[in-house]
Amino acid sequence: MNASDHSTSPVRLKATASPNQPTPTPELEQLYRGFEQELLVPLWTEIGNLMPPHPRSQATAHLWRWDRLKELAAEAGRIVPVGRGGERRAIALANPSLGGRPYATPTLWAAIQYLMPGENAPEHRHTQHAFRFVVEGEGVWTVVGGDSVRMSRGDFLPQAGWNWHAHHNAATEPMAWIDGLDIPFAYNTESQFFEHGRDAINDAERATPERSRSERLWGHPGLRPLSQPIDTPGTPLLAYRWVDTDRALTDQLELEDEGHVGVLSPGHAAVRFTHPGTGRDVLPTIRCEMHRIRRGGSSQRWREVGSSVYQVFDGTGTVRVGQQEWRVQRGDMFVVPSWVNFQASCDAETVSLDLFRFSDAPIFEALHQHRIEVETN
Amino acid sequence: MNASDHSTSPVRLKATASPNQPTPTPELEQLYRGFEQELLVPLWTEIGNLMPPHPRSQATAHLWRWDRLKELAAEAGRIVPVGRGGERRAIALANPSLGGRPYATPTLWAAIQYLMPGENAPEHRHTQHAFRFVVEGEGVWTVVGGDSVRMSRGDFLPQAGWNWHAHHNAATEPMAWIDGLDIPFAYNTESQFFEHGRDAINDAERATPERSRSERLWGHPGLRPLSQPIDTPGTPLLAYRWVDTDRALTDQLELEDEGHVGVLSPGHAAVRFTHPGTGRDVLPTIRCEMHRIRRGGSSQRWREVGSSVYQVFDGTGTVRVGQQEWRVQRGDMFVVPSWVNFQASCDAETVSLDLFRFSDAPIFEALHQHRIEVETN
Amino acid sequence: MNASDHSTSPVRLKATASPNQPTPTPELEQLYRGFEQELLVPLWTEIGNLMPPHPRSQATAHLWRWDRLKELAAEAGRIVPVGRGGERRAIALANPSLGGRPYATPTLWAAIQYLMPGENAPEHRHTQHAFRFVVEGEGVWTVVGGDSVRMSRGDFLPQAGWNWHAHHNAATEPMAWIDGLDIPFAYNTESQFFEHGRDAINDAERATPERSRSERLWGHPGLRPLSQPIDTPGTPLLAYRWVDTDRALTDQLELEDEGHVGVLSPGHAAVRFTHPGTGRDVLPTIRCEMHRIRRGGSSQRWREVGSSVYQVFDGTGTVRVGQQEWRVQRGDMFVVPSWVNFQASCDAETVSLDLFRFSDAPIFEALHQHRIEVETN
Amino acid sequence: MNASDHSTSPVRLKATASPNQPTPTPELEQLYRGFEQELLVPLWTEIGNLMPPHPRSQATAHLWRWDRLKELAAEAGRIVPVGRGGERRAIALANPSLGGRPYATPTLWAAIQYLMPGENAPEHRHTQHAFRFVVEGEGVWTVVGGDSVRMSRGDFLPQAGWNWHAHHNAATEPMAWIDGLDIPFAYNTESQFFEHGRDAINDAERATPERSRSERLWGHPGLRPLSQPIDTPGTPLLAYRWVDTDRALTDQLELEDEGHVGVLSPGHAAVRFTHPGTGRDVLPTIRCEMHRIRRGGSSQRWREVGSSVYQVFDGTGTVRVGQQEWRVQRGDMFVVPSWVNFQASCDAETVSLDLFRFSDAPIFEALHQHRIEVETN
Repeated sequence: MNASDHSTSPVRLKATASPNQPTPTPELEQLYRGFEQELLVPLWTEIGNLMPPHPRSQATAHLWRWDRLKELAAEAGRIVPVGRGGERRAIALANPSLGGRPYATPTLWAAIQYLMPGENAPEHRHTQHAFRFVVEGEGVWTVVGGDSVRMSRGDFLPQAGWNWHAHHNAATEPMAWIDGLDIPFAYNTESQFFEHGRDAINDAERATPERSRSERLWGHPGLRPLSQPIDTPGTPLLAYRWVDTDRALTDQLELEDEGHVGVLSPGHAAVRFTHPGTGRDVLPTIRCEMHRIRRGGSSQRWREVGSSVYQVFDGTGTVRVGQQEWRVQRGDMFVVPSWVNFQASCDAETVSLDLFRFSDAPIFEALHQHRIEVETN
Repeated sequence: MNASDHSTSPVRLKATASPNQPTPTPELEQLYRGFEQELLVPLWTEIGNLMPPHPRSQATAHLWRWDRLKELAAEAGRIVPVGRGGERRAIALANPSLGGRPYATPTLWAAIQYLMPGENAPEHRHTQHAFRFVVEGEGVWTVVGGDSVRMSRGDFLPQAGWNWHAHHNAATEPMAWIDGLDIPFAYNTESQFFEHGRDAINDAERATPERSRSERLWGHPGLRPLSQPIDTPGTPLLAYRWVDTDRALTDQLELEDEGHVGVLSPGHAAVRFTHPGTGRDVLPTIRCEMHRIRRGGSSQRWREVGSSVYQVFDGTGTVRVGQQEWRVQRGDMFVVPSWVNFQASCDAETVSLDLFRFSDAPIFEALHQHRIEVETN
Repeated sequence: MNASDHSTSPVRLKATASPNQPTPTPELEQLYRGFEQELLVPLWTEIGNLMPPHPRSQATAHLWRWDRLKELAAEAGRIVPVGRGGERRAIALANPSLGGRPYATPTLWAAIQYLMPGENAPEHRHTQHAFRFVVEGEGVWTVVGGDSVRMSRGDFLPQAGWNWHAHHNAATEPMAWIDGLDIPFAYNTESQFFEHGRDAINDAERATPERSRSERLWGHPGLRPLSQPIDTPGTPLLAYRWVDTDRALTDQLELEDEGHVGVLSPGHAAVRFTHPGTGRDVLPTIRCEMHRIRRGGSSQRWREVGSSVYQVFDGTGTVRVGQQEWRVQRGDMFVVPSWVNFQASCDAETVSLDLFRFSDAPIFEALHQHRIEVETN
Repeated sequence: MNASDHSTSPVRLKATASPNQPTPTPELEQLYRGFEQELLVPLWTEIGNLMPPHPRSQATAHLWRWDRLKELAAEAGRIVPVGRGGERRAIALANPSLGGRPYATPTLWAAIQYLMPGENAPEHRHTQHAFRFVVEGEGVWTVVGGDSVRMSRGDFLPQAGWNWHAHHNAATEPMAWIDGLDIPFAYNTESQFFEHGRDAINDAERATPERSRSERLWGHPGLRPLSQPIDTPGTPLLAYRWVDTDRALTDQLELEDEGHVGVLSPGHAAVRFTHPGTGRDVLPTIRCEMHRIRRGGSSQRWREVGSSVYQVFDGTGTVRVGQQEWRVQRGDMFVVPSWVNFQASCDAETVSLDLFRFSDAPIFEALHQHRIEVETN
């Protein structure tokens, strides 16, 4: 790049009279022209934005209503085919402050996926980690590495990166569910790989068993199948069933009733989905949890490094995200940006408010960058 | 120690004419007297024993019959009280080659414990890691840190070191079970602590719940209670129920029938009991597993560093330990010394041969000293 | 957001007639309007960009010449003061394809910093991890947690996040060096904290010792000071001196001459700067290495997930980054984007080509996303 | 075993009238006969010995004087050849309370080894971990995996299990040094393997370089050679030179003089020898450290789980081990049994008291059984 390229430099610097900035002078302007020409940017013009006292998220707290998501997904089901190339009929939440990109948060992708009766989503694999969560419906099986996994209401279905997978709807009704992935993180860090697999899975894989093979191997509490390796980055258990999750949450609240430890805070039960061979997060980059707030109760108010996406699984209540406050019900989805306070409360008219949550916390824990601040009162 | 102490030195050296030994001479004898006086032992007289080509266990393969163990335990139940001081009515297997010491193997303690109706074993805690396994019967609850844990046939009940615990028999029948501990290892390495607790647990602890609080918190597959720490050396789950273990083994054999991976080797299903928060062994020094050999089938033949104790949980079969071979049935216990070959076969007349096993393998794995050799044919 | 907000939605979708896209129809346009209104983006319009077969970096391979960097830094030294607010006279490389942002790569910040005789850079701390590397000059001490650390040619000076630090030039000449930080990564993942410290360090801290206290504690090979904790995320050793680095590289090449293992590949010696208490990377997010290519030799050609910045420390040679090729000399800096091939060759006229390198590899290793592909021929 | 074998049972039980024991009755005697016959031992007769309130070591605190060790070793050098079979002219400390076995403590072997001018100790390898420490003299090279390693006063030379090694004395004087191994631990846990290598190393291996190849690769502070694996259980660095150890200790005491952190306690500097690739102990089962007590100073008084062996490297002082107290000087060796208090003091007439120490602490840390209690006053 030479002097004549100046006008084409992506760098644009302007000497302004403002506190903490060097006094605008012709010399300074000249220096800035040199910087632009050489593709340089001084720290002193950027530090306030780049190095804030604490995270100031680009993302906005936002709520998406489930009824609208489903309506639009159903309409897409009617007019947009599923197949190789587009790969999935998935429609992603686009945070209003992230420039129209399909990013729920700066690191997380969240989408509603929709499959019509008899449809198949073709096989592929990618290094992005993924999961599915089913807020309602049934009839779809996801086939991961040849293992057919039933998807039903309340089930959590993780699928670690680089596993071949396809989906097929074996029922007579359409089915919707949500997908979570670390697509924005992988995109921004430029670490992603993707491959197409077969266009159609075979008949054996189109089976519709009640339990997947992964569950038969790994779905027994505290029991490791000796034949299986345990050092996989992601979980080998492909389905965490609602019956188990529900019972775990119920148990915590009953323990609280009996005066014993168990709940995260008064009236607030919570479990994390974990790799049964290591106890770590199910996916190296995504943490997934189910929270239950008891009738009339509230969670603590807290903020932490990293962002979360929630979906209301059941019940009604109120959630506060920073200055925002929404009344929410089944299926509604919302984001909590980094270092923004969050609190959830369950209505008095419902048994409990059940919230599915996923976040990017494992990234920060692995890199020793995680912080959390719980409000005490 | 001075010269006149010579006769009292525990060291005794003798110059002998043998290969690899220095020629016996008066000078050498004189040198050896000096060694004795100064409490010294040369490597060259000891190396063959101390540094063999591979482990040559001091322990012997040995079998104890369950009917005799139970008879003697029942007789002890009749005439030996349980209480503070003796602490437990536990009767330990003494390997015939370990000098009459209550050591099943050089590192492991295995005992039958027996509690009469209404009896209580007083509270204590120790750094030795322990577990209980129930081959038959029911009616006893072990109370660990105030949490009452039911003990029934097939249940595995780990109890990591330094937890307060007591037992009480709430039934109208005596009950026997086996205890496994790392007492010999802790004794030889001189690393053990012990404290008495209360002589009697309170009424609330004398409860007889179907499920312990630990199970309600940790007994859900892949689900971690967010309120609980996970970095405990031993497992926080105090009971691994037979219904789960049985199903896991059944699943593996059915997967084999369907042509899928799952069994450890043809006809041989196996699970390891693990810490649900870390996936590691339930106890830092003791590995516990359940093995099932299908009707008419056999395990592979293998040997490994470290010793094991087995108890037949169900079925009949034949076990080969080194040159020994025994026909075994429910309750029978036997030891496999370090680096001695083992193979088990299930009879044709029984559904399966179920073997509970515990070993000291975690010690060697933690210290990078583990080796295993599986015979291939 | 209601229907009338349409025009303000950041989401913009256009139905186009192209392969893998649904046929443009009025219905589809209508659906897309719904998506825009509800802040939704379908996967099928984005997948090619979001989920490429392998990383396709936004960043460009680019070279900055040291003489120009120094000229501009010197000019900034003349006219831009250093002080609270701007904090540092640091001028960052702005990758030409990253929109004018001060990002050398999507994750890494690289800057030249400049301090005039007698100047002080005020104390602050931040969670972003940082290091300094000195390609020439001396006279500045960086004061980290009260420990004054000399900076001289060839020295590598890491400074893990959240340590207080200031710099002062104790010499009569200006001094320039480079800074590397994970500012873009922290910015994009929104995980950063920053605090101002004292405006001026005290007299004791303005000392100019030959060795810092950290070196006296941690700078002895293989020796851990028993009084110090070792579980710090970043290294406690604040200076890696050129005399040691140079000797380590020389040793590897001499071992190669003698026919022994040691070099990374023929003619290519390399060391990684590591945390002496854990052996891990000096910083949780940044890997730092020194490479030496022997006269007339070349490195292998390889590509890996994640990006790197290099500075030529000594010698002259040729580097190839993807399709680019540059002749380089002392001080020149260049970036290697994710998954772009790199190879370096040393001229025949110079003793060796010494390259300082830093990269974001620890991020990908911690998250199990690292891949490397070395060309074999 | 049947009834007639009674007299041959190794188990011997006696009903005695004593507290905490069942009342001696004919029935009890009959029960005990049954136990003996079936190779069983009740807990109630053993618990006091087996499960004490805290470790009560079988070993005794004991001191061996270096002048006597050397005299006897020199005499052995005169009359006992070194060669295949006996393998090494090593003479082990036999703790007076461990039955004449060559065990310094229940887990550790400590020996003086002696090699005459021109002698060679034949090549072998074993899984037991070993090190050498040189209190005086020089002239021997140990050859580990073909790498010749000089041994000189103050040098610490670890050698992790399963590495081929031989020694040769290239000087005109005999040389003595000490060996430390985990032989008793490996023996008691039955985990050891041993193989003979070549009877003679080749000429290239008989070299006498100043620095070993391992030092040229790994002996640079904080610098990891990129070509080398780091996940070895034991350290790849085969020599820790006195010049480095001495400087590290000197630095700590000077930092104390200047008012900075660094010493372990007032007047007491200490470093641990560590694996430069992981920061962990040099050997998986043996911890090695060098301690320096300043003139007139003392260490703290502490006790910990596990045993230690010390050798005085330099200076004179007083050591207290439990109730014992000895004045010590260069070369003297003594043991500190498990959970016995230790304190060392340096005389006023000597610059410092330098103590080399090795212990079995890594075993207990790996198994979460370590405890330490430092006396505060």
